[in-house]
Amino acid sequence: MPSGSPVRSPAVASTGGGSTAPFDVDTGVSRVGERTWEATVTDRWSIGRVPNGGYVLCTALAAVGQAVGQPHPLTVTAHYLSPATPGPAAIDVDVVKEGRSLSTATARLSQEGKARLILLATFGDLRAHRGPTLVAAVPPELPHPDRCPGRGPDTTPFPEPPSLVDRVEFRPAPVSAGWMAGQRDGPARIEGWLRLVDDPALDPARLVLLCDVMPPAVFAAMVTGWVPTLELTVHVRALPKPGWLRAVVSSRVIVDGLLEEECELWDGDDRLVAMSRQLARILPPPA
Amino acid sequence: MPSGSPVRSPAVASTGGGSTAPFDVDTGVSRVGERTWEATVTDRWSIGRVPNGGYVLCTALAAVGQAVGQPHPLTVTAHYLSPATPGPAAIDVDVVKEGRSLSTATARLSQEGKARLILLATFGDLRAHRGPTLVAAVPPELPHPDRCPGRGPDTTPFPEPPSLVDRVEFRPAPVSAGWMAGQRDGPARIEGWLRLVDDPALDPARLVLLCDVMPPAVFAAMVTGWVPTLELTVHVRALPKPGWLRAVVSSRVIVDGLLEEECELWDGDDRLVAMSRQLARILPPPA
Repeated sequence: MPSGSPVRSPAVASTGGGSTAPFDVDTGVSRVGERTWEATVTDRWSIGRVPNGGYVLCTALAAVGQAVGQPHPLTVTAHYLSPATPGPAAIDVDVVKEGRSLSTATARLSQEGKARLILLATFGDLRAHRGPTLVAAVPPELPHPDRCPGRGPDTTPFPEPPSLVDRVEFRPAPVSAGWMAGQRDGPARIEGWLRLVDDPALDPARLVLLCDVMPPAVFAAMVTGWVPTLELTVHVRALPKPGWLRAVVSSRVIVDGLLEEECELWDGDDRLVAMSRQLARILPPPA
Repeated sequence: MPSGSPVRSPAVASTGGGSTAPFDVDTGVSRVGERTWEATVTDRWSIGRVPNGGYVLCTALAAVGQAVGQPHPLTVTAHYLSPATPGPAAIDVDVVKEGRSLSTATARLSQEGKARLILLATFGDLRAHRGPTLVAAVPPELPHPDRCPGRGPDTTPFPEPPSLVDRVEFRPAPVSAGWMAGQRDGPARIEGWLRLVDDPALDPARLVLLCDVMPPAVFAAMVTGWVPTLELTVHVRALPKPGWLRAVVSSRVIVDGLLEEECELWDGDDRLVAMSRQLARILPPPA
């Protein structure tokens, strides 16, 4: 366990081992007390001026990963309390159950005393599970990544360009590219290829992030502004094969401006490696 | 706010107003401190000897409902830490954010000092939301409840009859009745009519319970034992019309004995009033 140094160090990043991958550096946390960690929320994973919720979640989750004995987040739920800002953050972790095969903890990430998010996570070891297998879901059929257009023009409703697209590469399938050209009357579904930029590694923590980086599915179905997440739950279902992921986001029930959005991530071995559902609100773009 | 009496009283039940409905009585909680409530987990909502997880969750949620200013749980996640037993319970609530429109809290339910579950919930007011509506999901097509058989023989893997079926009436559609006669090779999907017994009321708290009372969908697809929930997330999407609900549970990805299960509840106005997803394990029946 790392000693309590206030200096943020990649050596205690979520995947350990002194990784210099942007994800590990930018979600790095330093233990400064029995239940307290420090981190710096960077401006490198933002939409507009707001750091991506999945990125902030992964920073808090890195602290939980250091507090429990199991290597993999199996199920993580975050409730978003106020938008994070680039800058220092404190993370308080409460290990609720430390078990032999499963451990459960809450973590609260705060900035200047204001809570940004609270999460509830159970960690385990995905390699240790045994039992029946029966899969009725199939990955989306996508043309080869080389035949999918890049993300195209910035469609976020903010004056600042989204720094997130420098860190995450999304190549929508042709069937999902129409909304970027202004066609917003299709089904609320966007699919395509997804990977981190300059980061061939892929692990459960990165899957948690990648469940929350796609354009909102509702963008394909109607003109909207900002779609902030109230709550996000991710299930990590398998250790992912490195490389491109196939990603699908969709919403089925949009009522009075509240919607659920699901994300599925499939790896190169045709395995569903993560699935998520979030509850979000449709709001006008911020000024 | 009720005074801190250790005597459990229906007058402070989750829906207030001195309700004598079994749900309100059995999830009743009494505030005994600034952040602490007492309750009694009854044996009236059990499968085998184990109180149903949704029922225990609703007891903890009743305490949160007294601690926050908003009337409706919008999104609730519970992680199950150890099986509850009938008997006294203590509930510790921590309100993380008390907002004007949304409040977020954690609650931990313990028995004899041992944590049974921890939940994370955001409350709001379902009547206050405004924004676009677009629904792409449809309710299951079911024959009239009178033309659906009753639950049939007890198919739980325990010697004790499940007391839960005295409180919850489930009438599987004919298409979902085969598994009860031993046909366990269909898709992992069970649908039918669902309601509480002797309780015409229907509210968001009851929807949270009813998302976790159906037979596991995997029972229709393979021979299994016990399918304990690791984590359950419920989104309450609308105030339900009283009466029968149409319910669908399904699992798509069962891998190494871990599975996700979704539940949708539709009311008599064809509205999706609640949707849930859980992560569960397939285990052999307990001795």
